[in-house]
Amino acid sequence: MKSKLHKKRLGFQRERELVRQFWKRGFACMRAPASGAKTKRTPYPDIVAIKNGRIFIIEVKTREKRSTVYIPNGQMLKLLEFSRRSGGLALIALKFIDGSGWRFIEVSKLERTRSGNWKVTPEMWDEGLTIEDLDRMCRGEKSLEEYIKS
Amino acid sequence: MKSKLHKKRLGFQRERELVRQFWKRGFACMRAPASGAKTKRTPYPDIVAIKNGRIFIIEVKTREKRSTVYIPNGQMLKLLEFSRRSGGLALIALKFIDGSGWRFIEVSKLERTRSGNWKVTPEMWDEGLTIEDLDRMCRGEKSLEEYIKS
Repeated sequence: MKSKLHKKRLGFQRERELVRQFWKRGFACMRAPASGAKTKRTPYPDIVAIKNGRIFIIEVKTREKRSTVYIPNGQMLKLLEFSRRSGGLALIALKFIDGSGWRFIEVSKLERTRSGNWKVTPEMWDEGLTIEDLDRMCRGEKSLEEYIKS
Repeated sequence: MKSKLHKKRLGFQRERELVRQFWKRGFACMRAPASGAKTKRTPYPDIVAIKNGRIFIIEVKTREKRSTVYIPNGQMLKLLEFSRRSGGLALIALKFIDGSGWRFIEVSKLERTRSGNWKVTPEMWDEGLTIEDLDRMCRGEKSLEEYIKS
């Protein structure tokens, strides 16, 4: 139980670190209220980051080492619903703690598992967007389509 | 002290009620994390509501009876900063509990006090936007300028 709590606090720390990075780059950025409020009626994402009217809806994942991350379908549906309503781009923010930085993977890139959940592979991390890429998208230097080649 | 805590909890309840109203109308809507996290480095507004790419940055105020609300300049600056970064419209959501519903007052309408703070008068509430007005703005039926006549 203590270890679960520890994990949760660690998760919040990492979310806050990411929020600070967005803030430093001139984004408006807000974390969701903690757990209780989050899981009830309203399907909050972990983070919403906005700049110049460009909206990113973000679920935050970290792993100690480079490995595949599985995302339950229910969590994905909540993310997509928030994204649909807002008109924002849904992203998975993924960081491997052993050295790598944050990368952002567009949810349309994710693969479905046999059990109906979703996975993010280390290879998707390799090809993911950096925070600089997101920043450039907000400055309108490149279109969304140029970044997210399908 | 007990009464202060009670007041705070009441405030959260009312924020949540407003979030539900936005949600029912098809908005993506998120409350800020509670106090501690809110007041530190990152100047969160109380609520961010987004629909079809239209962004509203909202500070929530309630009063038991129809009366003037004073907003400290520091709070206003935080709201304006978040609004500037996001490209969203900064609003004060005001509700008088004795019967009236929510109205949204655009911050440019607020009056400055001698001490450098800001006030929202009951007359501004009378002329404020309803949640239906905000919804219509997201459907692009009327431009922002048509709603916010200066």
